Amino acid sequence: MVGEHSSKQYDQELEAIRSKVLLMGGMVETQFDEAVNAFRVGNTEQADKVVADDHAVNQLEVQLDDACSHLIVRRQPAANDLRTIMATIKVITDLERIGDEAAKIARTAKSLHERGMVSFNHYETVRTISRATADMLHDALDAFARLDGKAAVQIIAQDDVIDHEFRTIMRSTITFMMEDPRTISSALDVLWVAKAIERIGDHAKNIAEYVIYVVEGRDIRHSKPQAVAAGGEG
Amino acid sequence: MVGEHSSKQYDQELEAIRSKVLLMGGMVETQFDEAVNAFRVGNTEQADKVVADDHAVNQLEVQLDDACSHLIVRRQPAANDLRTIMATIKVITDLERIGDEAAKIARTAKSLHERGMVSFNHYETVRTISRATADMLHDALDAFARLDGKAAVQIIAQDDVIDHEFRTIMRSTITFMMEDPRTISSALDVLWVAKAIERIGDHAKNIAEYVIYVVEGRDIRHSKPQAVAAGGEG
Repeated sequence: MVGEHSSKQYDQELEAIRSKVLLMGGMVETQFDEAVNAFRVGNTEQADKVVADDHAVNQLEVQLDDACSHLIVRRQPAANDLRTIMATIKVITDLERIGDEAAKIARTAKSLHERGMVSFNHYETVRTISRATADMLHDALDAFARLDGKAAVQIIAQDDVIDHEFRTIMRSTITFMMEDPRTISSALDVLWVAKAIERIGDHAKNIAEYVIYVVEGRDIRHSKPQAVAAGGEG
Repeated sequence: MVGEHSSKQYDQELEAIRSKVLLMGGMVETQFDEAVNAFRVGNTEQADKVVADDHAVNQLEVQLDDACSHLIVRRQPAANDLRTIMATIKVITDLERIGDEAAKIARTAKSLHERGMVSFNHYETVRTISRATADMLHDALDAFARLDGKAAVQIIAQDDVIDHEFRTIMRSTITFMMEDPRTISSALDVLWVAKAIERIGDHAKNIAEYVIYVVEGRDIRHSKPQAVAAGGEG
C-alpha cells in the first residue's frame, strides 16, 4: 500500500526524530556531567543552570512525543517500522527522567554547599559510580544512534556493576554516620546523590533494552541477563 | 477512510486494552498494599509474594505494549484516537515501575525484619504517606477508567502533599539517627521505603497527567499547577 516514495519520506522523517532524540540525549548527558561537577566543586551557579536546563529537556520531550504521533498518523507504518517509533517514545521518557535525576543532584549539591555541610570527602564517595554511569549512558546513546544490539547487550551487564557500587557506598556511608553522628544530614545528601546516579544507570539500561527490541525484534525487558546475552550472540 | 464498522471494532479493541490496563492497575495496587503490610507486621512470606507477583506485572507490560502496537498497525487510528493509545502506552510504563517500587519495599521489609532491626516505630513513620499514596494511586486509576479530567487535576495537586510528607519523614528520621546512632542502618531502610512510596506518588501523578492529555487534548506535563487547574476548569 505504501509506495517507495512514501516509504523514503517515512525513513527521512524517522531519522529527523532520531537525530533530535540524540540531541536530547546530549543535553541530559551535559546536565548529568554538570550536576556531578557542581556537587564536586560546590558551584551553585552551575547547579542552578542544570535545574534551569531541565525545562528545555522537558519541552523537547513534549515536542518529540508529538512528532512521533504525527509520524504514525501520516505514514501509517507497518509493524516493523512501528517498533522503532514505539521504542523511540520509550527512550524519550527515559531521557526526560534522567534530566529529572540530574536536576535532583544539582539541587542537593547546592543545598549541601550552601549549608557548608561538606564534612567528609563527599565527592570521593560517588566518583566511581558517577564515572561508570556517565560511560554507561554515553554507550547507551551510542548504541541507540548506531542501532547496535551487541553493544546494547554489554551495556545491560554494566548496570550490575553500578548497583553493586551503590551498595558499597551505602555501607561506607553508614559507617561514617555511626562514627560521627554530626555528619548524618550531609551523609544522607551524599546518599541521595548516589541514589540519583544509580537511577540514571537504570534509565541507561532501559535505553539499551529498547535498542535490542528494535534491532532483534524481541522484547528482552524482564529477561535474565544470561538469556539476554545468549540471544545477543545468536 | 475508516468506515463505521471498522471504527466500532477499533473502539472495542481499545476498550479491551484499557480493561487489561486497569487489571494491571489493580495488580500493582495489591502489590503496594501487601508490601506496606509486610513492612508493618514483618510478614516475610507476604514480602516474597510481592516480589514474585512482579513477574506477572512485567509480563503484562510486554503483552499490553504489543497489543497497543497491533492495534495501531491494524486500525491505523486518526490523530485523536492515537492520543489515547499513546497515553495508554505511557500509563503501562508507569504501572510497571510502581510494581518495581512495591517489590523494593517488600525486599526492604524482609531484610529489616530478618535482621531483627526494627528498633523504633518504623511503620508509624510511613503510615500517613503510605495511606495518602494508596488513595492517590486508586484515584488516578479511577480517573483513567472514567477518563475524568477534573478528578485528574485534583490528583496532581495531591502529589505536593506527599512530597511534603516525605520531607517531614526525612527530618524526623535524621533526629532519630542522631539521638541513637545504632538505629542508623534500620532508619535508612525506613527512609528507602518512604522514598519508594513517594516515587509511587510520582507515577500516580504521571497517570493523572496522561488522563488530562487524553480528555483535553493538551499536554500538561511540565506545566505549573495553577495553569493545570485553570485549564481544567475552562
